[in-house]
Amino acid sequence: MIIMDKRIKEIDIYRNKEGLRSDLHDYLVVEAPVTIYLNEEEMVTLLCTPENLEELAVGFLVSEGFIRNKEELQEVKADYDKGNVFVVTTGTSLIAERTFLKRYITTGCGKGTSFYNVMDAKLSKIVDSGLKISAEAILALMKEAANKSELFLKTGGVHSTALCDTKEIIVFREDIGRHNATDKIVGKCFREGIPLQDKILFTTGRISSEILIKVAKMGISIIVSRSAPTALAIDIAKETGVTVIGFVRGSRFNIYTSPERVV
Amino acid sequence: MIIMDKRIKEIDIYRNKEGLRSDLHDYLVVEAPVTIYLNEEEMVTLLCTPENLEELAVGFLVSEGFIRNKEELQEVKADYDKGNVFVVTTGTSLIAERTFLKRYITTGCGKGTSFYNVMDAKLSKIVDSGLKISAEAILALMKEAANKSELFLKTGGVHSTALCDTKEIIVFREDIGRHNATDKIVGKCFREGIPLQDKILFTTGRISSEILIKVAKMGISIIVSRSAPTALAIDIAKETGVTVIGFVRGSRFNIYTSPERVV
Repeated sequence: MIIMDKRIKEIDIYRNKEGLRSDLHDYLVVEAPVTIYLNEEEMVTLLCTPENLEELAVGFLVSEGFIRNKEELQEVKADYDKGNVFVVTTGTSLIAERTFLKRYITTGCGKGTSFYNVMDAKLSKIVDSGLKISAEAILALMKEAANKSELFLKTGGVHSTALCDTKEIIVFREDIGRHNATDKIVGKCFREGIPLQDKILFTTGRISSEILIKVAKMGISIIVSRSAPTALAIDIAKETGVTVIGFVRGSRFNIYTSPERVV
Repeated sequence: MIIMDKRIKEIDIYRNKEGLRSDLHDYLVVEAPVTIYLNEEEMVTLLCTPENLEELAVGFLVSEGFIRNKEELQEVKADYDKGNVFVVTTGTSLIAERTFLKRYITTGCGKGTSFYNVMDAKLSKIVDSGLKISAEAILALMKEAANKSELFLKTGGVHSTALCDTKEIIVFREDIGRHNATDKIVGKCFREGIPLQDKILFTTGRISSEILIKVAKMGISIIVSRSAPTALAIDIAKETGVTVIGFVRGSRFNIYTSPERVV
């Protein structure tokens, strides 16, 4: 059977089991370099699952502060064969550009301050939308998100992220990168005007400082994960007022910060 | 009980279990920004588990091609409180600097070619050391590495990487980042003159293109993971001749490339 899914590559491998070797037809998750161009300038190359590239590009640019409102976004065109996305805006924010350069130059050319300081300086308390969620809904939605992940079930090589309200999954995205999966959701919501402040982000990945910063910047007040948060992510969650829920497994989970949102 | 382990932070959280909420004393893995200075120039800030910082810095610089032989390395000093590591060498390689800048400028400022092309151009077939490993040894070493991971057992928030010969673990490192854990091993081996060509790298993390490139550059001919490889990692493994073994669980595993090294 030939699968026409660009996210999957078929391969013949060997399986060793209890000392015996057999042939096996298996599926690998595709990892592709995708380059984002902003106003005809090459901006960044991400390694990702090559689907929803328009969303990924817009989400990345919104997360990084290059695009702040919908009116600025003029055109998005993706070339899936070459792995390029071209985004045209009414102009880049000089502040965002400075921060982005600072951050990546820190990660490359030896100028600027540390990543954490740069990001830290920009974060402020999220606006509390009054959102609350029940323990039952947390367990049910995490289970639903896990069952929805076809690509993971087939390849075991991706993280999935689901944007939910208190009842159901609104947007679901899978990617080899945790950050990319989240950016795809940001991009979709930004383009379609789906508000984020009354939503909850579910992820299979660990909650590191970078994910927490992304969530806080979007104004999302609750993040839920199957896995562990880091101490730095929890520090930032306390500063920004985000509720962090981790280790959702079976009928239990941990609440690390702002527990009043879980009822 | 107060734990004097800088890798761990204690926290009081809530545990929800079958609808009931209770207090719980728990442990978070510490995530710290660490800045590497090369010859007094700020080079990069990594988010990592703050131990073995000297190894991390040297390993990063070796992996990126800034240091190529031991004679070039003059001094390594880590300031654990401030999260800085100062490395002094006899001079940086201009070629490495160009590639590094190109790569990160691609990831930042819009110049240069894509990440994959840059890396691809530099890879060549690894030198086959004739190393072979038995199926029993693969299963036994993966199990040993999993049991050795105290920090994971306590926090659930790290990846671990073990450098092994065909009989035992030689170096074991844990970090919130897969890349960092590998770089810590590279750094230790480089400083102590431990050869890598006759060793096997075991990791709990997925095998993405970036990890495969790191392994191939070190001349390691076998990589073993609990998790999945990506299609791009397998393409690079075929090009470079690295044996990729994945999904080591219980009494079974998959062999994706160069199966002749598993006996």
